[in-house]
Amino acid sequence: MKKRLAILVGSIAATVIAAPTLADEGMWQPHQLPALENILKEKGMEINPKSISKLTEFPMNAVVSLGGCTASFVSPKGLVVTNHHCSYGSIQFNSTAENNLLDKGFLAKSLSEELQAAPGSRVYVTEEVTSVTDKINSGIDSTLSGAERYQAIDNKRKELVADCEQDKAYRCTVSSFHGGLEYYLIKALAIRDVRLVHAPAKSVGKYGGDVDNWMWPRHTGDYSFYRAYVGKDGKPADYSEDNVPYIPKSFLKVSAKGVADGDFVMAAGYPGRTNRYRLAEEVRHAFGSSYPTAKKYREEFIDIIKTVAPEGSDARVKYESTIAGLANYAKNYGSMLNSYGRSDFQQRKDQLETDLNAWIQADSKRIAKYGEAMQQLNALIIKEQHYWLRDLTLAYAGRTNMLDAAKRLYRLAHEKSKPDAERESGYQERDMKRFEQGMKRITRRYDAEVEKTVLHHFFMVYAGLDKEQHVKAVDKVLGLSKPDAKQLTKKLDKMFKKTKLGEEETRLQWMEASVEDFKKSKDPFIKLAVATYESDMQLEKEQKAIAGEFQTLRPKYMEAIIAYNQSIGKPVYADANSTLRVTYGNVKGYSPKDGAVMMPFTSLRGLSEKETGEWPFNSPEKLLKLVSAKTHGEYYYEPVDSVPVNFLSTLDSTGGNSGSPTLNGKAELVGLLFDGIFESVIGDWDFDDNLNRTIHVDSRYMLWVMEHVDGAHNLLEEMAIVK
Amino acid sequence: MKKRLAILVGSIAATVIAAPTLADEGMWQPHQLPALENILKEKGMEINPKSISKLTEFPMNAVVSLGGCTASFVSPKGLVVTNHHCSYGSIQFNSTAENNLLDKGFLAKSLSEELQAAPGSRVYVTEEVTSVTDKINSGIDSTLSGAERYQAIDNKRKELVADCEQDKAYRCTVSSFHGGLEYYLIKALAIRDVRLVHAPAKSVGKYGGDVDNWMWPRHTGDYSFYRAYVGKDGKPADYSEDNVPYIPKSFLKVSAKGVADGDFVMAAGYPGRTNRYRLAEEVRHAFGSSYPTAKKYREEFIDIIKTVAPEGSDARVKYESTIAGLANYAKNYGSMLNSYGRSDFQQRKDQLETDLNAWIQADSKRIAKYGEAMQQLNALIIKEQHYWLRDLTLAYAGRTNMLDAAKRLYRLAHEKSKPDAERESGYQERDMKRFEQGMKRITRRYDAEVEKTVLHHFFMVYAGLDKEQHVKAVDKVLGLSKPDAKQLTKKLDKMFKKTKLGEEETRLQWMEASVEDFKKSKDPFIKLAVATYESDMQLEKEQKAIAGEFQTLRPKYMEAIIAYNQSIGKPVYADANSTLRVTYGNVKGYSPKDGAVMMPFTSLRGLSEKETGEWPFNSPEKLLKLVSAKTHGEYYYEPVDSVPVNFLSTLDSTGGNSGSPTLNGKAELVGLLFDGIFESVIGDWDFDDNLNRTIHVDSRYMLWVMEHVDGAHNLLEEMAIVK
Repeated sequence: MKKRLAILVGSIAATVIAAPTLADEGMWQPHQLPALENILKEKGMEINPKSISKLTEFPMNAVVSLGGCTASFVSPKGLVVTNHHCSYGSIQFNSTAENNLLDKGFLAKSLSEELQAAPGSRVYVTEEVTSVTDKINSGIDSTLSGAERYQAIDNKRKELVADCEQDKAYRCTVSSFHGGLEYYLIKALAIRDVRLVHAPAKSVGKYGGDVDNWMWPRHTGDYSFYRAYVGKDGKPADYSEDNVPYIPKSFLKVSAKGVADGDFVMAAGYPGRTNRYRLAEEVRHAFGSSYPTAKKYREEFIDIIKTVAPEGSDARVKYESTIAGLANYAKNYGSMLNSYGRSDFQQRKDQLETDLNAWIQADSKRIAKYGEAMQQLNALIIKEQHYWLRDLTLAYAGRTNMLDAAKRLYRLAHEKSKPDAERESGYQERDMKRFEQGMKRITRRYDAEVEKTVLHHFFMVYAGLDKEQHVKAVDKVLGLSKPDAKQLTKKLDKMFKKTKLGEEETRLQWMEASVEDFKKSKDPFIKLAVATYESDMQLEKEQKAIAGEFQTLRPKYMEAIIAYNQSIGKPVYADANSTLRVTYGNVKGYSPKDGAVMMPFTSLRGLSEKETGEWPFNSPEKLLKLVSAKTHGEYYYEPVDSVPVNFLSTLDSTGGNSGSPTLNGKAELVGLLFDGIFESVIGDWDFDDNLNRTIHVDSRYMLWVMEHVDGAHNLLEEMAIVK
Repeated sequence: MKKRLAILVGSIAATVIAAPTLADEGMWQPHQLPALENILKEKGMEINPKSISKLTEFPMNAVVSLGGCTASFVSPKGLVVTNHHCSYGSIQFNSTAENNLLDKGFLAKSLSEELQAAPGSRVYVTEEVTSVTDKINSGIDSTLSGAERYQAIDNKRKELVADCEQDKAYRCTVSSFHGGLEYYLIKALAIRDVRLVHAPAKSVGKYGGDVDNWMWPRHTGDYSFYRAYVGKDGKPADYSEDNVPYIPKSFLKVSAKGVADGDFVMAAGYPGRTNRYRLAEEVRHAFGSSYPTAKKYREEFIDIIKTVAPEGSDARVKYESTIAGLANYAKNYGSMLNSYGRSDFQQRKDQLETDLNAWIQADSKRIAKYGEAMQQLNALIIKEQHYWLRDLTLAYAGRTNMLDAAKRLYRLAHEKSKPDAERESGYQERDMKRFEQGMKRITRRYDAEVEKTVLHHFFMVYAGLDKEQHVKAVDKVLGLSKPDAKQLTKKLDKMFKKTKLGEEETRLQWMEASVEDFKKSKDPFIKLAVATYESDMQLEKEQKAIAGEFQTLRPKYMEAIIAYNQSIGKPVYADANSTLRVTYGNVKGYSPKDGAVMMPFTSLRGLSEKETGEWPFNSPEKLLKLVSAKTHGEYYYEPVDSVPVNFLSTLDSTGGNSGSPTLNGKAELVGLLFDGIFESVIGDWDFDDNLNRTIHVDSRYMLWVMEHVDGAHNLLEEMAIVK
């Protein structure tokens, strides 16, 4: 035991030496990197920043999207590494009760043993990113109304995508940057024969489960392997036994040496969405009103479930996953509100707007260019917020199954009357299987007493809102123009007694019904859906019109922000929008609070200390024996006196970055990005140098498990491992 | 914000440099210190270890006991510094609703403003420690039974004490060391005019309250000042306006420079009780049986209260402090069990016994000397444990008010029939005020439904125990020879319906009653107390007899342990027994788990980050303003970029050490010891180098608050401050 602290303490020394002086904020578009060349070199990048700016060159052509996750090629034969949680669906898809691959893990010893990934799995290789801002903007002028603008832009985007997708091998998207200031057409090769190659047991790949979600210290082996297959002609093809592994333009070497505290790291990936350029008013609203209320609503929702369905009851079992989901984001909001309350985020936002306005007002040209837009944008934000409380309240009521099912089923009847391509997303033919599964799932997740109480609660909150916040159709059908608890109880009792939507068969039958069938129904929830449909559609239309107005104003604001930053010598990256970005930084711990420091590495020893033998802390026996025997192989890292498991970095990441290859200065894979820490949940809004940390699986841990626990020697041989 | 981590990280560097190589375990009797001279010098002690071994020389003659707490002289005029929690009772005693000194804090600007401490407050200055082992043992031989031995030793101790206390100025005690291997007569000057001089507001002195109890990072200003007064003749005297400040033989200088990470520190104090030399079997029993059961009982007790007295009910209010007490030790046991489960403590104990036995068996003289005692001791331990489950179960039943009050009142009637001096402690005249307060307190802490349910629960557990565990008297009066839930419910319903002990007046009347009165009573709980009294007394007698047997065997075991350790060159300290001890070590952080490190210092910044404005995190406004303004005065410590508040050290301490002066190598006061960390709760049994940490108030924080917040300039001038 004595050796331990001395060693931990030793590893802190490196942090001291490497304490960086530059902020690591930024999710950069690859083409921006050459402008950051000096910073990157100073921080430790050894490859030429110019090369990383080119999508068709190493290493960027080895980085791929899985749609929602990131991955990378790690062999010349299309082997792809990503997070375990990114291939979770595919492992589950191939599991049966008798052969549960989630529990056991999976290893294909040869190509022929590889398994088809879950339906819809894709590997997207971004090949071209072309600016289409001019094309989108041509013909769009200030005479258009918000709704018209929204429609016009939507049409242009669809045209450009359709054009690009003439070649069926590609999936194309038009992405908006800086709120619509720039548009890029992104053309990605869409490989659609994806196979599962290897995944460790869930007790490695998802070690710590929900308990450790967002948490540090962490000990999760969050990695797995896919392989991309194409037709014999090298082009994407549907699954076929004749298909052959895709030969990527390049692939990443995997480092068995890993990184040390303070080392330079970077990651390329597809971060989902951030709100770094929201206006002060939007921040104030989110953190002052919307998040606290949403957190409260979630907690109330949970309280109702726990009261109506006490621990041990049948009803409670049905709501465990609902509780988990509600609690998860209540925790997320809690973290953000806590960070917001403790930081000077709002003051900085306010200051930025003051500074920006002063900068605009200091120059008549700037006033002419941005002055009006700033005011209008703030006015639009206020307008958009006007009904937030009503909408949020009704949205939480709408999280109950009967109300939700009735509305979705009726919308389906409407959407089905349109050609498939014109239907709203979620109601197209390709969505029907999932839609049906959703309708079936309600059977296992529904209890009338719980839902009645939840609806009563949120409807009473709604009924108590200001008159002008009310939706006539809702008031009319439910009698909610003013709060009357007894009346509402009676009403809901009746509705739940009469509705047949609690029956799975009935729900599935309604999937085939026409709009007319719905209109004739006497089912109280169907009647409710029919009665509020027009009103709901009207609200959706109004929201799209507001979105159209934002499409005029936000680009002007971003233009001002970029120009202002340029005037003070600061490059600007765009908010994340699921497009390819690069982030750089260092391996580094953090201080969660006065007196406490989190070290940047965890180790096998810490993993075994967490062990309880019960999920989610139940490592495979073989792994534990290796830990006890100190079988470190070539993956020993002296500062932790063990094999490192996970590490922290200052990289700027968010959801969608999962699975991103973490690269050292030579662009060797030293880890996989898989989570952020609790204190950086607010990172989607505000980057704090001291608290923004990203969590990675250490490549040494991945290789150690593959070699010593799972015996994945075929893959270790296939990959290029740097020793 | 940027500066923060860099600075924290900077302070880690010192830890690296100072990582000590010697274990700091040991609560040493001062006379042992010269033997440790080399170690002490190597670690950083600058004063002569020989001087610290003498009670009549500096610095030991500046260290005093308050009875349960430690303190020290810090001025030539009898000024004494100790923990805030050690003078809490005196601050409370001087508080009224209109003038709440706990809330406001207190500062006497001159001697005349000083307030009498709570009744019974004493300052004990240890002047002589004399070995009396031979005296105690003379005339005690192996022919005595356990009970006789117990009585004989008790009588000898009483004689020696009475002799020594001929001089009324002194309080004397005979303390047993190494389980009775050695006895020392300790003669302490007992100063009985003690006055409250200064205490910060509770929101400084008890900052963090129960929430932060045992916790690190910590931000508690746990200090306060008393002054010792004596008669004009310099001898202890009862309170009188004519008394004068006591002039101590020496006093400690207070350091305004404080300590740094890695610095040598030592503390002198009166640690209460440890179990470091318990046998493997005793450890196994405590951690395998007794603690887990006690933890479970406490949790069951809490569950019953929470169910019968739901949140918000009147009954719940009555049990909040009961819940807090139960939960506090459930947490304590939880920490110990957790530490035990994660460590190799039991293996080490087992190994030690194996090694010790091997060492004994290797030599015929040793076999003759220790061989039998070892076996007998283990047999006695097994015998002692035989009824543990019955006793623990009945003890938890006995934590209910009616049962406890009835038994105590009846015992009082018995004890009162004896001369005061012969009565059992707790039943003497001096105890009567507290006894009465206890009887009154029940009124605010009693609910029949709760108690009935608790009693039912524990009596049913008792009833389910093996037949041979049963106490006849208990079975007879309660009908518990076998479990019968319904019958017991009926019985208890009747008892609670009929008893008048729920009435305060009735309880107080019983305090005056005779044994005969009790025997005539029809009150069901009185009847229960009467019916079980003889049986209880018999059990108490048997326990004393076992204690007498331990007094023969444990000294032999300790003699073997000491000889064995001597053979491997290891000095042995005795288990803590509330006598003066010295512990030494270094300022040092720790790693609570893989990937996390606790720094050895907290700071004003961290204090303000904890602030919620609600107790226990509601610092005085003035303090917070000074923090905001970064008014650090001369107490700034660069590694934390602020004033340090608390620090950690490797010192070996336990309850009773509270208030101990923490000294640097020059014997200057650099802090006050006031708590241990959660991970070292098991320290009473097992010292773990990596996790045993003691928490201190930093002298710089104390001086900073005194100077900048409370304006205690008179005291700052009175003390000798090293700048």
